[in-house]
Amino acid sequence: MRDTLLPKRIALPVFASDAMSSVAYAPQEVFLVLSVAGISAYSLAPWVGLAVAVVLLVVVAAYRQNVHAYPSGGGDYEVATVNLGPTAGVTVGAALLVDYVLTVAVSVTAAAENIGSAVPFVHDHKLLFCLVGIVLVAAVNLRGVRESGVLMAVPTYAFILGMIVMLTWGFAQVFVLGRDLEASTAGYELVAEQSDLTSLALVFLVARSFSSGCAALTGVEAISNGVPAFQKPKSRNAATTLVMLGTVAVVLLLGIVVLAQRMHAKYVMDPATELAGLPDGYRQMSILAQLAESVFAGFPFGFYFITVVTALILLLAANTAFNGFPVLGSVLAHDRYLPRQLLTRGDRLAFSNGIVFLAVAAMAFVVAFDGEVTALIQLYIVGVFVSFTLGQTGMTRHWTRLLRTETDPDARSRMVRARVIAVIAMVMTGSVLVVVLLTKFTEGAWIAIVAMVALFVLMKLINRHYRSVQRELQAAAERDDGVLPSRTHSIVLVSSLLLPTVRALRYARATRPDVLEAVTVNVDDRETRTLVANWEDSDIDIPLKVIASPYRDVTRPVITYVRRVRRESPRDVITVFIPEYVVGHWWEQILHNQSALRLKTRLLFEPGVMVTSVPWQLASSKQAALRQEETFFAPGDTRRGFGAVGRKENR
Amino acid sequence: MRDTLLPKRIALPVFASDAMSSVAYAPQEVFLVLSVAGISAYSLAPWVGLAVAVVLLVVVAAYRQNVHAYPSGGGDYEVATVNLGPTAGVTVGAALLVDYVLTVAVSVTAAAENIGSAVPFVHDHKLLFCLVGIVLVAAVNLRGVRESGVLMAVPTYAFILGMIVMLTWGFAQVFVLGRDLEASTAGYELVAEQSDLTSLALVFLVARSFSSGCAALTGVEAISNGVPAFQKPKSRNAATTLVMLGTVAVVLLLGIVVLAQRMHAKYVMDPATELAGLPDGYRQMSILAQLAESVFAGFPFGFYFITVVTALILLLAANTAFNGFPVLGSVLAHDRYLPRQLLTRGDRLAFSNGIVFLAVAAMAFVVAFDGEVTALIQLYIVGVFVSFTLGQTGMTRHWTRLLRTETDPDARSRMVRARVIAVIAMVMTGSVLVVVLLTKFTEGAWIAIVAMVALFVLMKLINRHYRSVQRELQAAAERDDGVLPSRTHSIVLVSSLLLPTVRALRYARATRPDVLEAVTVNVDDRETRTLVANWEDSDIDIPLKVIASPYRDVTRPVITYVRRVRRESPRDVITVFIPEYVVGHWWEQILHNQSALRLKTRLLFEPGVMVTSVPWQLASSKQAALRQEETFFAPGDTRRGFGAVGRKENR
Repeated sequence: MRDTLLPKRIALPVFASDAMSSVAYAPQEVFLVLSVAGISAYSLAPWVGLAVAVVLLVVVAAYRQNVHAYPSGGGDYEVATVNLGPTAGVTVGAALLVDYVLTVAVSVTAAAENIGSAVPFVHDHKLLFCLVGIVLVAAVNLRGVRESGVLMAVPTYAFILGMIVMLTWGFAQVFVLGRDLEASTAGYELVAEQSDLTSLALVFLVARSFSSGCAALTGVEAISNGVPAFQKPKSRNAATTLVMLGTVAVVLLLGIVVLAQRMHAKYVMDPATELAGLPDGYRQMSILAQLAESVFAGFPFGFYFITVVTALILLLAANTAFNGFPVLGSVLAHDRYLPRQLLTRGDRLAFSNGIVFLAVAAMAFVVAFDGEVTALIQLYIVGVFVSFTLGQTGMTRHWTRLLRTETDPDARSRMVRARVIAVIAMVMTGSVLVVVLLTKFTEGAWIAIVAMVALFVLMKLINRHYRSVQRELQAAAERDDGVLPSRTHSIVLVSSLLLPTVRALRYARATRPDVLEAVTVNVDDRETRTLVANWEDSDIDIPLKVIASPYRDVTRPVITYVRRVRRESPRDVITVFIPEYVVGHWWEQILHNQSALRLKTRLLFEPGVMVTSVPWQLASSKQAALRQEETFFAPGDTRRGFGAVGRKENR
Repeated sequence: MRDTLLPKRIALPVFASDAMSSVAYAPQEVFLVLSVAGISAYSLAPWVGLAVAVVLLVVVAAYRQNVHAYPSGGGDYEVATVNLGPTAGVTVGAALLVDYVLTVAVSVTAAAENIGSAVPFVHDHKLLFCLVGIVLVAAVNLRGVRESGVLMAVPTYAFILGMIVMLTWGFAQVFVLGRDLEASTAGYELVAEQSDLTSLALVFLVARSFSSGCAALTGVEAISNGVPAFQKPKSRNAATTLVMLGTVAVVLLLGIVVLAQRMHAKYVMDPATELAGLPDGYRQMSILAQLAESVFAGFPFGFYFITVVTALILLLAANTAFNGFPVLGSVLAHDRYLPRQLLTRGDRLAFSNGIVFLAVAAMAFVVAFDGEVTALIQLYIVGVFVSFTLGQTGMTRHWTRLLRTETDPDARSRMVRARVIAVIAMVMTGSVLVVVLLTKFTEGAWIAIVAMVALFVLMKLINRHYRSVQRELQAAAERDDGVLPSRTHSIVLVSSLLLPTVRALRYARATRPDVLEAVTVNVDDRETRTLVANWEDSDIDIPLKVIASPYRDVTRPVITYVRRVRRESPRDVITVFIPEYVVGHWWEQILHNQSALRLKTRLLFEPGVMVTSVPWQLASSKQAALRQEETFFAPGDTRRGFGAVGRKENR
C-alpha cells in the first residue's frame, strides 16, 4: 500500500504525533478540573497524572500483543469483528469515525491555544485560526501531497527534544540549582468554586480530572493500525516503537504535571471568576507555555520554540486523522458498511469526499464549541475508550480461543500472559470508560454518543441494503437457466448523417448483429424528410426506421419501440447504440447530449437491453483529457504498477 | 402540433387574452402620466387614447398581411430572419424572450391591483399575491394540464361582456339618462407637480403618456404565432380573428378613456402627494374598478364581477406567456441559438426548465419593482416594439422581393397595397419605438435593453459553438477514409461472479467479437484470488486478465490497459462491457455504480472505444420504473402516436 517501508526512527514520528501531542492538552485539563476545589486540590495532580500514566502503560502493553496477533493493520475494528462479531466491529468503527473528527477539532484548537499563548493576535482570533488551520490541512491532503516521513519527523523530534530540554532545565533549576522557579500565574489566587466539598464530591472531581487526563491516551492505537508500513520484522518493530512512544509519553506527561505543580502554575476554565489578583487584559496561557516562559526566562527563543513546535505537532496530529479517516472508510467499505466506492483509496473523488466530510464535520464541532479545547475534550475520549475496551475484550476472547487448541507449553504460557494483559487492559479501559461516561455524560459526552449511534445505525442500514441485493442476486442465480441469448438485435439511434452517426453505424456493423437497423425519431418533419432522402442517396445499406413522436419527444417513442422489439423476440438481446459527443467544458455539456443522456438513463430500466455509447471526441475534449491526465495520472505512475496476469489464454 | 384545430370563437379567447387584458392597465397609465401636469392635462387623455387606437389598428392591419404571408406560426422572428437575416431574427428573438418575462410580471401585478381594488387584503399584500400568482400559473403549466380552449374562453368572454355592459350602462346613464356620474376620486383635487410646463415639456409628457398607452398593443402578435392552430382556411380565419380582436380592443380602450375622463376619475403615481382632500387610509383603486364602482353603484355584484374577471383575464395573459415561451425557445433551439434539447417541447425536463426560468425571472422583476405595474410598464413595451418594427421592416422587404418577380396585375396591386400597409406600420411602430426609448430610457427601459443585449450575445455565442462543432465534423468527414473497423475486441469488466457479471459475459459473447476477454482490477488481493479460483472452477471459457492497481483505483488501470490494447491493434474497435445495477432510489445510487459511472465517463474520452452498459435491474428499480411510467407516459399515450415507417427493409 505504501511505497516504502518505514524504519522505526521514521515510524515513530509518523504514527506517534497524535499520541505525543496529547500531552500538550491532557495535563492542563487535569489542573483545570481540579481548580474547582481550590489550590489544595492541585496537590492531587501528580497522583492523577500517575494514574493516567499507569493506564497508558497498560494500554501500550496491551497493544504490543495486538501488533503481534493482528499485524494486518485492521486495528481494533478487526479485533472486535473477528472475536466479538460484526456488531462490536461496527460499534468500534462508528466510535473511531467520530474520534477522527474530534482529533482534528481538539488538535487544532489546542494548537490555536498554544500559539495564542505567544501570539496575542491568534489568542484574540482563535476561531479564525482553527478554521484556517483545518482548511489548510484539508487542502494539503486534497492536493494529495504524499507526506514525507522525514518531513513529519522534524517537528515531532523537535517537540520531544524541546520538551525534554525544558523539563530537564526546569527540574535542574529547582532541584539542583535550588532556584525558586515560579510560573507567571503563581501570584494569582485560585478562587475555589466549591471549597467545602464532601468527600464524595471530591472523589467525583478527581475522577473527572482523571477522565480529562486520559485524553493523553488518544492516538496510541495508531501504531497498531500502521503495522504493514513498518520494516521487517514488522510486528516486532511496531511493538518496539510502541514502547518508545509509551516511554516518551509517560515521561513528558509526568514531567509536565509535576513541574507545573511545583511552579504553582494555574489553569482554569474562566480566569475572570476563578483567579483573583489578575492584571487588566490578562490572557490565560497554556500550561506548556507557562512552563516554557518561566524555565526559559531571559531566553525568549526557548519560549517561542516550545509554543511553535507544540502547535506544529498538534497540526500534524490533525493531519494524521486526515490520513487515517479514508483508511478506516476503506476498511468499513470493504465490509459493506459504507458505500463501495470508498474502498478504493486511489479513487480521488471518494477520497476527496472523505477529506471534505472530515474537515466540515471538524469545523462544525470547532464552531459549535467556540474553539474551546476544554469543551471539546468532554466529547473526545468516549470514542477512544469504546474502541480500547471492545478491542481488549476481543483480545481476551482471541487468546481464550487460541488456548483451547494450543498444546505447546511455551506458547501456552505466552498466551496466558498475553491474556492476563488483555484482561487487565479490558477491565482498566472499561473502568475508565465508565468513569468518563459518569463524569462527562452531561458535559458533552452524550453528543459524541449520539453521533456514534447515528453512524452505527447508518452503517447497519447500508450493510442491510447490500446484503438484500446479494440475496436478490442469489435468488436470481438459482432461477437462472444459463441459456445464451439466441440472437442480437442492434438498433442505432440516428438524428443526422454526420460522421459521429456514420461511425456509430460502422461500429455497430462491425459487431455483426443478427438484426441491424437504424432508427430516427421524427421530432421535425422537414429534418426527417431530409434525413430519409439523404439516407436513400447514401451508400448505407442499413434500413432506417422513422418513429413518430406526437410530442416531439425522443425518449418515449424509443422506449416504446424497444419494448415492441423485445415483445416480438423475447430471447434476443437488444443493443441500442447511441452516438455521443464528448466535450471538454461543462457548458458544452449543456449544449450537447442532453436527450441522449436522458434516453440512456431511461433505457437502463428496460430488461434485456444493453446501451452502447459510441463517443465522438470533439476537439475541446482533447484538452480536457490532457488536463485530467495531469491530475489523474500522477507523474511516473502511467507505466508503473501495471502488470496484466494472463489466465486461461485458450478461448 | 395541437391535437385539435380551433374555431374562431375559441381562437379569439385563446390567443387574445394577452392583447385584450392590456386595456386593464394601459388607459390608467395614460392618466397617471398626465397627472403630473394637473387636471387640465386630463382633457388630452381621449386624444392620447385615439392615437394609441390608431397605432393599434395599423398594427392589426399589418399583421393581417403577416398571417397570410407567413402562416407557419414563426411570427416576427421568422419574418425578420427570412427577410433581414439572422441577426435581425436573433434580435427579435431576444426582444420576445424578455417580453414574455415582462408579460408575466406586468399581467400579474395588474391582476393584483385590480383584485386589490375590491379586496383590501390583496391591496395590502400585493407582492405576496403576485408571487403566489406566478407560482400558481407556473405550477399549472408544470403539471402539464393542457389548457382547454373552452375553459379559457369563459373568463375572456366574461371580461368582454362585463366591460361592454359597464361601458354601455355608464354612457347610457351620462348621455341618455343625463345623470351626473362621478368617480369616487372625482372629489379629490389633483396637485400638479409641474403646473407651469413649457410647451416642449408638455409635448414630452404627452409623448410619455402615449408611450405608456401603447402597452395596449402588447399581445397583438400572438394570433400571428398561432395560425397553425386555426381551422381552415387558417390564414383567413386568423385574419378575421385579428380584426375582431382589434375592434374589441379599440372599443374598450376608447370607451374606458372617455368614460373615465367624463367621470373625473383620477389615477396617480403617489396619492399621498398628488391628491388633495384624501380621507385617512385611502387606497387608490384601478381606473377600471373606479368605473365599475360608480357605474354599478347600488349593484355591488357588478363591481366585484368586473374586478374578478379583469384579474382572471390578466392571469390568463400570464398563462399565455408560459405557453409561448417554450414555443419560442423551441424555434430558437431549432436554429441553434439555444440548447438543442429545448427543441423537443415534449421533453418534460427541458420544458420544465423553461417554465421555471420564466417564473423565476418574472418573480425577480416583480420583487425588484415592488409589484408596481407603473414601474414595470416602463420596461415592457420596448421588446414588443423592437419586434413590431423589425417584423414590419421584414414585411416591407418581403413584398418588395415578391414584386420583383410577380407579373399578374391583380396580385401586384394586392402586394403594393400590402407593402404600403407594411411601410406605414414600420414607420409608425418605429416612431413609437423611438418615442418609447426617448421618454422611458432612464425610467427603466434601459434595463430591458440590457437584458435583450445580454440574451442576444448569449444566443450568438451558442450558435457560434454549434457552428464550430459542425465545421469540425465536416473537416473530420473530409479526412474520413470510410474503412470499417477490422475487428472487434470486447472487454468485460468483472468484479465478481455474480449473475449481473455472468449475464454481461453472455451478452458480450452473443455479440461474437473477434477477441473477448474478461478483465478484473485487483483492488483487494484476497478477493481477487477468490475470484480467480472461482473463475477457474466455473464453466466460463473466457480468459480472465487481472490488472494490478497500486492505489486500489479502478479507472486508471483500465484506461491504461485499454490504451495498450488500442496501441497494439489500432484498427480494432474496442467495446468495454460494464455490468451495472439499476436501482430505484437516489440513495441506492450512492451505494452502487459510482466506480462504474466514473470509469464510463473517463472511457468516453478514449478514441476508438465504445462503452456498453449491461444493466441489471434490481427489484427496487421496477417500482421506480412504474412510478416514472405514470408521469412519463400520459394516459392513453402509450399506444397512440407510434407508427414505425419501414424503409430499405433489405439488408
